[in-house]
Amino acid sequence: MNTITLLTDFGIKTNYVAQMKAVISKITEDVQIIDITHDITPHDIREGSFNLLTSTPYFPVGTIHVAVIDPGVGTQRRGIIITTPSQILIGPDNGLLIPAARYLGNFTVYEIKNKEYMLEYISNTFHGRDIFAPTAAHIANGIEFEEFGPIINDYVDLNLGKPEIKPKYATGNVIFIDTFGNIITNIDGVSIEEYLDFNKKIIAFIGKEEYEIPFVKSYDYVKKGELLATIGSNNLLEFCLNQGNAGNKLKVKPDESIKILYG
Amino acid sequence: MNTITLLTDFGIKTNYVAQMKAVISKITEDVQIIDITHDITPHDIREGSFNLLTSTPYFPVGTIHVAVIDPGVGTQRRGIIITTPSQILIGPDNGLLIPAARYLGNFTVYEIKNKEYMLEYISNTFHGRDIFAPTAAHIANGIEFEEFGPIINDYVDLNLGKPEIKPKYATGNVIFIDTFGNIITNIDGVSIEEYLDFNKKIIAFIGKEEYEIPFVKSYDYVKKGELLATIGSNNLLEFCLNQGNAGNKLKVKPDESIKILYG
Amino acid sequence: MNTITLLTDFGIKTNYVAQMKAVISKITEDVQIIDITHDITPHDIREGSFNLLTSTPYFPVGTIHVAVIDPGVGTQRRGIIITTPSQILIGPDNGLLIPAARYLGNFTVYEIKNKEYMLEYISNTFHGRDIFAPTAAHIANGIEFEEFGPIINDYVDLNLGKPEIKPKYATGNVIFIDTFGNIITNIDGVSIEEYLDFNKKIIAFIGKEEYEIPFVKSYDYVKKGELLATIGSNNLLEFCLNQGNAGNKLKVKPDESIKILYG
Repeated sequence: MNTITLLTDFGIKTNYVAQMKAVISKITEDVQIIDITHDITPHDIREGSFNLLTSTPYFPVGTIHVAVIDPGVGTQRRGIIITTPSQILIGPDNGLLIPAARYLGNFTVYEIKNKEYMLEYISNTFHGRDIFAPTAAHIANGIEFEEFGPIINDYVDLNLGKPEIKPKYATGNVIFIDTFGNIITNIDGVSIEEYLDFNKKIIAFIGKEEYEIPFVKSYDYVKKGELLATIGSNNLLEFCLNQGNAGNKLKVKPDESIKILYG
Repeated sequence: MNTITLLTDFGIKTNYVAQMKAVISKITEDVQIIDITHDITPHDIREGSFNLLTSTPYFPVGTIHVAVIDPGVGTQRRGIIITTPSQILIGPDNGLLIPAARYLGNFTVYEIKNKEYMLEYISNTFHGRDIFAPTAAHIANGIEFEEFGPIINDYVDLNLGKPEIKPKYATGNVIFIDTFGNIITNIDGVSIEEYLDFNKKIIAFIGKEEYEIPFVKSYDYVKKGELLATIGSNNLLEFCLNQGNAGNKLKVKPDESIKILYG
Repeated sequence: MNTITLLTDFGIKTNYVAQMKAVISKITEDVQIIDITHDITPHDIREGSFNLLTSTPYFPVGTIHVAVIDPGVGTQRRGIIITTPSQILIGPDNGLLIPAARYLGNFTVYEIKNKEYMLEYISNTFHGRDIFAPTAAHIANGIEFEEFGPIINDYVDLNLGKPEIKPKYATGNVIFIDTFGNIITNIDGVSIEEYLDFNKKIIAFIGKEEYEIPFVKSYDYVKKGELLATIGSNNLLEFCLNQGNAGNKLKVKPDESIKILYG
């Protein structure tokens, strides 16, 4: 059974996601559709790319991901398929797919041009349903990538920022605030762990503010309502509030700069 | 594999939708359940009927749709099955299913009366779980429609409004504001397209206000934050704000009248 | 085909739930994953346990439920599997699973200790993905419960409160406010029904306020916007507002005490 995932900013109040699933079901059988999320902040390509990137390590070989954060729909922006050694990515050529592609390894980008594998009537505002969903279903049916269009090299790139890890400090930026209000940075957990001791305090500059925050193994090592720093489930440095919302309390937004002194 | 869809106003915070899926899984195997949406504005039959109507064109032949927007549950209102040449509709007899039925063509309405195909204990407040979900599962198992109850002709009708398209102007009304704040009208795109030129302005009367709005192929043909008119993905005239929320900005609600002069 | 359900407080904005589904799909094939809900109030074990408890009656024999409301993740709290005569429960040892286990009958609790059936890298903050999801998938694949760890008897218990039903009055408490704002109590419907007459008024003390409320068969037996008492779909006494939100109107929260005089 093939797995197709969907990641969009369409929300689930309207039937847009269901129309995409309907199109897939009409073209291919014996497929399992898994929603990654449909609640990406509208038009936020970075947030979408982070959620796609951090999902891919857990999916089986052969998974086909359809991601549609697409403010440029209906303009000249192209649709693409990216093949990698293990999984396949489909969506707009606006950088959304690139961080995941780079993580998955040696990748090739195909432009989607062949109208044979699109819906008959293609709207100007919903290529998720009219182009990307049918592309995924036809790939699940075994159509060769070359059938969809040519290989391209001038795809739009996207970089989620590069942290700097030094023996006395690390710098990076906030990449995402999750549902719990956890402030997720792009600072790699494995890399800084050797400089940090559990239950000691670090100095953290988050945006313009300075904090002294205990570095702990998990949330419940501090009291309810207290700040903590930890290595989160995506192996990234996070700032959290035990049983509370750190993003709201610290008034932090994505992209703000982070600096930590190991203390 | 059969496809059963669910459309409700139950939200997804409580386990009501999961109870319906559990009931279906207990009665029939090898079925794929697709959520259309569970976030219809509570008790809004029109909004539910619009989301059901615009989903049906994309689903495979044989799809069984269960729709439950049901303020009259537990009263005398009946439960119905509607058969059409391609898909099957199940839900309360309050008009919800009729726009989709009419779109799908020559249709027949059966009342659901046979208790043999309902849950043993039928609550007064949740026929979605106790009557409609088991009905869908038994139909997926091949039970004949006649087994559920008699054909009826006095079902409750619902009409989503009829637009008027003239050579110099068109009138209609707002039928839905989607997740992005796009203001979707009931004015058919194919019909007005012959009177309109891309990138020219039209005069739009939305509620009591008058606007000059460019008619464009897609969102990104105007600057970020600017109003536009376009033919949306359901082939209906929409008013949108590029990367913004037109419904909020124009303070427009469903049912408000629309008039456009082609300019 | 096995059914695995998921119940969490992770929300659906981030990809945490998708990571759990990915892990399951990687380990086992031919499984159907059903979401119970992911919108439990964060860290609210009681609310989670109520939603799990009231889902189980509808699921097929053999269903494997994974429930993760887990404020103590990464501390000494244990992970457990509970076997019952019909269904299987997996999650943290914090009481969350116990009301459902007790309902399902004669149950046995196993501690999850064997790292062979966990992900290779176990984070300190996301045992839902790293321990509970793989446990469910391996059970679906037929691994024996004994393989995961020893039987324990000192699991953490949880009790949702015991109502008192007398010939003239009943007492209990609010256990849940649902999506519609219906105030659900722990007072059993079948037990009080013999003392009540439809369409007569009862006296209800909800928190510190006193109300006269008609007891009716379903919502639409009172006018729009009026309060009513009814036996809800989980066979529990509920207070509702026809086509409105009783929880907001009465400013009631979970755990408030309830007393009704049959009038």
